[in-house]
Amino acid sequence: MLLKTACVCVRAPRLQQRAFSCGVAMAKSKFEYVRNFETDDTCLKNCYIVVRLDGRNFHKFSEQHGFLKPNDKRALGLMARSAESVMDNMEDVCVAYGQSDEFSFVFKRSTNLFKRRASKLMTHVTSQFSSSFVFYWAEYFTEQPLLYPPSFDGRVVLYPSNRNLRDYLSWRQADCHINNLYNTVFWALVQKGGLSTSQAEERLRGTVAGDKNEMLFSEFNINYNSEPQQYRKGTTLIWNMAEEVVTKKVKPANENEKEVHVTRTRRKIAAHHCDIIGEQFWEEHSGVLESD
Amino acid sequence: MLLKTACVCVRAPRLQQRAFSCGVAMAKSKFEYVRNFETDDTCLKNCYIVVRLDGRNFHKFSEQHGFLKPNDKRALGLMARSAESVMDNMEDVCVAYGQSDEFSFVFKRSTNLFKRRASKLMTHVTSQFSSSFVFYWAEYFTEQPLLYPPSFDGRVVLYPSNRNLRDYLSWRQADCHINNLYNTVFWALVQKGGLSTSQAEERLRGTVAGDKNEMLFSEFNINYNSEPQQYRKGTTLIWNMAEEVVTKKVKPANENEKEVHVTRTRRKIAAHHCDIIGEQFWEEHSGVLESD
Amino acid sequence: MLLKTACVCVRAPRLQQRAFSCGVAMAKSKFEYVRNFETDDTCLKNCYIVVRLDGRNFHKFSEQHGFLKPNDKRALGLMARSAESVMDNMEDVCVAYGQSDEFSFVFKRSTNLFKRRASKLMTHVTSQFSSSFVFYWAEYFTEQPLLYPPSFDGRVVLYPSNRNLRDYLSWRQADCHINNLYNTVFWALVQKGGLSTSQAEERLRGTVAGDKNEMLFSEFNINYNSEPQQYRKGTTLIWNMAEEVVTKKVKPANENEKEVHVTRTRRKIAAHHCDIIGEQFWEEHSGVLESD
Amino acid sequence: MLLKTACVCVRAPRLQQRAFSCGVAMAKSKFEYVRNFETDDTCLKNCYIVVRLDGRNFHKFSEQHGFLKPNDKRALGLMARSAESVMDNMEDVCVAYGQSDEFSFVFKRSTNLFKRRASKLMTHVTSQFSSSFVFYWAEYFTEQPLLYPPSFDGRVVLYPSNRNLRDYLSWRQADCHINNLYNTVFWALVQKGGLSTSQAEERLRGTVAGDKNEMLFSEFNINYNSEPQQYRKGTTLIWNMAEEVVTKKVKPANENEKEVHVTRTRRKIAAHHCDIIGEQFWEEHSGVLESD
Repeated sequence: MLLKTACVCVRAPRLQQRAFSCGVAMAKSKFEYVRNFETDDTCLKNCYIVVRLDGRNFHKFSEQHGFLKPNDKRALGLMARSAESVMDNMEDVCVAYGQSDEFSFVFKRSTNLFKRRASKLMTHVTSQFSSSFVFYWAEYFTEQPLLYPPSFDGRVVLYPSNRNLRDYLSWRQADCHINNLYNTVFWALVQKGGLSTSQAEERLRGTVAGDKNEMLFSEFNINYNSEPQQYRKGTTLIWNMAEEVVTKKVKPANENEKEVHVTRTRRKIAAHHCDIIGEQFWEEHSGVLESD
Repeated sequence: MLLKTACVCVRAPRLQQRAFSCGVAMAKSKFEYVRNFETDDTCLKNCYIVVRLDGRNFHKFSEQHGFLKPNDKRALGLMARSAESVMDNMEDVCVAYGQSDEFSFVFKRSTNLFKRRASKLMTHVTSQFSSSFVFYWAEYFTEQPLLYPPSFDGRVVLYPSNRNLRDYLSWRQADCHINNLYNTVFWALVQKGGLSTSQAEERLRGTVAGDKNEMLFSEFNINYNSEPQQYRKGTTLIWNMAEEVVTKKVKPANENEKEVHVTRTRRKIAAHHCDIIGEQFWEEHSGVLESD
Repeated sequence: MLLKTACVCVRAPRLQQRAFSCGVAMAKSKFEYVRNFETDDTCLKNCYIVVRLDGRNFHKFSEQHGFLKPNDKRALGLMARSAESVMDNMEDVCVAYGQSDEFSFVFKRSTNLFKRRASKLMTHVTSQFSSSFVFYWAEYFTEQPLLYPPSFDGRVVLYPSNRNLRDYLSWRQADCHINNLYNTVFWALVQKGGLSTSQAEERLRGTVAGDKNEMLFSEFNINYNSEPQQYRKGTTLIWNMAEEVVTKKVKPANENEKEVHVTRTRRKIAAHHCDIIGEQFWEEHSGVLESD
Repeated sequence: MLLKTACVCVRAPRLQQRAFSCGVAMAKSKFEYVRNFETDDTCLKNCYIVVRLDGRNFHKFSEQHGFLKPNDKRALGLMARSAESVMDNMEDVCVAYGQSDEFSFVFKRSTNLFKRRASKLMTHVTSQFSSSFVFYWAEYFTEQPLLYPPSFDGRVVLYPSNRNLRDYLSWRQADCHINNLYNTVFWALVQKGGLSTSQAEERLRGTVAGDKNEMLFSEFNINYNSEPQQYRKGTTLIWNMAEEVVTKKVKPANENEKEVHVTRTRRKIAAHHCDIIGEQFWEEHSGVLESD
């Protein structure tokens, strides 16, 4: 019915147009009931809200874009740069941790950003990260053009206590360690040892961490613990209070305008490549987490 | 405790490294319980799943990037191109509708993509759309560089019946109409009528659709219904079955290799700028929706 | 702190009491933030809301209360009576279906009872059913006292279409059939055939429905299809419009008071023990379900 | 279709019965897909799970059953008895608190009862409470028969920290205090002061706690703080370890059977009517809550 009206309208005299336009306007309110199908997904109060992103099909993506193995410094830099862009836009992220093609963003437990709506939080993080990844690509991959737009998926997880949150971050860092140790040996066997990838896989089957350290040292003279911390520990981003001196012009009453130097503190993002499983990091940056 | 071990390890002889590495590996399983804090957000079966994206702070974004008013053909083209990129990656999107800085993606009610997990669906759509928006920017804004990475937020809404889904799409198209009519008059008053933006707002206060049509016609000789359909109706994307003839080389037994022409049907995305409130569109494309 | 005040207060002169009382009152508002930890569990609009109850540990309960096997008419009657009590209190239940120790209540898809909050709907149904089960016990179990308060658990499931809802009810009725056929043979073997329960189980292992019908007929001369419909089909409760004639006293102006007979329609609950898998029941009671 | 088969079956020879029965059995698996419409409602790990029950329409219920005002000792006793029945059936309830017609049950944060499924937890609590309320009615209301089955609704709320949980319980106890003080004055004005209920309401409008204490003391010679603690503080139920000495018969080898006394500890529910806002109660019963 509405359609016919609409069709008529295209050729209609002005009086009928009015009717048509009103019709659509009125129709809008008739349709607006569909709004009530949205459901509330507010996150439980007083819990840390973690948004974790993972690259989709990044195995293939990394091959197509010539990522160096086992670690590509450009890719890790771009990931961290994109994560910074997320934090810059959402100051309630108190800590972020990334490794490989994943990044986790921790919103402080008292945040009220987007009224704690899970869908808003995770889509905004994912969107900002994804657009930044493309936007900053050329800064990191100066020789390698981006072939197609990549995609990340995201999820939200809540943690009620500081212990739970720290265990979450420890879980991700332990995962980083395990994968990176494996990859370091694997690619040494392939790149320096001349094995095929399936031969390398075979060699590593059933080995424990100690065996892998041993193989690296005895066969390739690599001390795993001397590998760059960025690869072994991942990237932890937190806010630092940095002091800056800025020059301001002021004009006191009955005086000439003059310049004064004002010290102000500004939040800046700092990247760390250190252990976050133990106590030391958290003692040194005791302001990052709120108390239970 | 773990930290001390870790710290020691950095300077440790190889035997201790082994212990350390094992420690982290074992630690991982100790931390893995945090996985169980993830909650299931599977969407109710047999409902349409709609993911709607909205540009964040696009009022400011459009000003900073010199969008033409009331409609910028480049921006609308880029939005549609990004939406196509989403559909190409997720074939279970049966229809998508966009207008202004928003786009809605409708997953067919029987989809099992990502096991219907809401967070996966909405973040993947948002990510693909956002990275595509940056990736294809220069194709549409040839003169205007992108100044910073933009962001979109997303949400998921379920619709149990075809009527509900059609009403949702009608709601968005009625919204397009109302806003576009307003903007068309508003910017005519400003750009051609020489009014300030606040004067134009004042003129339009309390007018109904008919008044606006009248103003456009009598003052600016614009027949609103002759304005481009793309502006008045938004963009609807659906899958079309397109036939293509491809040439293949075959080699029958006991014969020489030869070329044959094979007709194959391929799904292609088609854009429409027409009314989707009435019956006609849905009758002409009856395969888009499944029956209740 | 508050505690000390409170303790002092017990022995305190009146002036201090005032302070104390104010303290608690003010404290209340200090504590009230905990309200915001409640989450919204509104059911998706335009879906049927099914609340299904199951008896907890009813195997043991039925033994302790001497339920007759395979079916206890008193127990089935009490279940239906309790279900009626639920429907009487919640008129938006359009149909209820029960068998064995379970009962399902279907709220019409347009219901707005308790603002469609899942927790309110399921707990109110469960509560009303449970208290009714105890309240009406003695009407059905005239010789057997209730030994302890029984418990039922509940759940909420949404169905978007009439087909889905009908399939849900069919699922429950098919379950009734399968269990009842099994139980009928099982208890015939035990009660009439003199087998132990484990021997009866052994006899029935691997048999299909046809075998069981055969055993009943050839060994016990029981035609399964002549067994009471209540046992084979379960109990379906729907609303009937019943006409009643009531006598009212009226006093017209300038006349003496007189009695008149008024016909009024009242909703009454009707119990059916028939097939609800096929079309017939739904055609005969076409008002029970709303259209999609 | 199936229906017709079914109808035929009633009068059918045995061979057809077999077909029919198979039909229903097979149909069951055809319908079983409806199971997948159930959604997961697992409660977030490491949070206290609170189930709160409220009497429905208890204002009317209490009038119809002649509850004494402002407090009916029988009703409070019955509420506590029903709550005990809940705790006896669910040992993971670490503390319960009740006042007026409400009762809250706190499941310990580490509970895995019903796999932490919210619907199971709240319906089981509600059901057990409701059936117990009817079952034990006559023990408390010896002269007043129960006129109809009452109903309670329930809800689930999660609290991530001990502070949040304690604030929840404080909120309920502060509510108890405020209501009970009001009711004590209100009913003194009505029962002893001879005011109508609306006059009493009028007198109390705008008064603060101190005023109410004053009125009680000066007009009715009631020291509010001497009122029974049960009324002023509500009822808190926790588990106590009680030692019991039991007599057992044992028969050592080569000896005659003899009786020995064995001491065993058993969990028993203890009721308290004291302040739970301050520290003292929690210090004295430090095992009730787990650490954060």
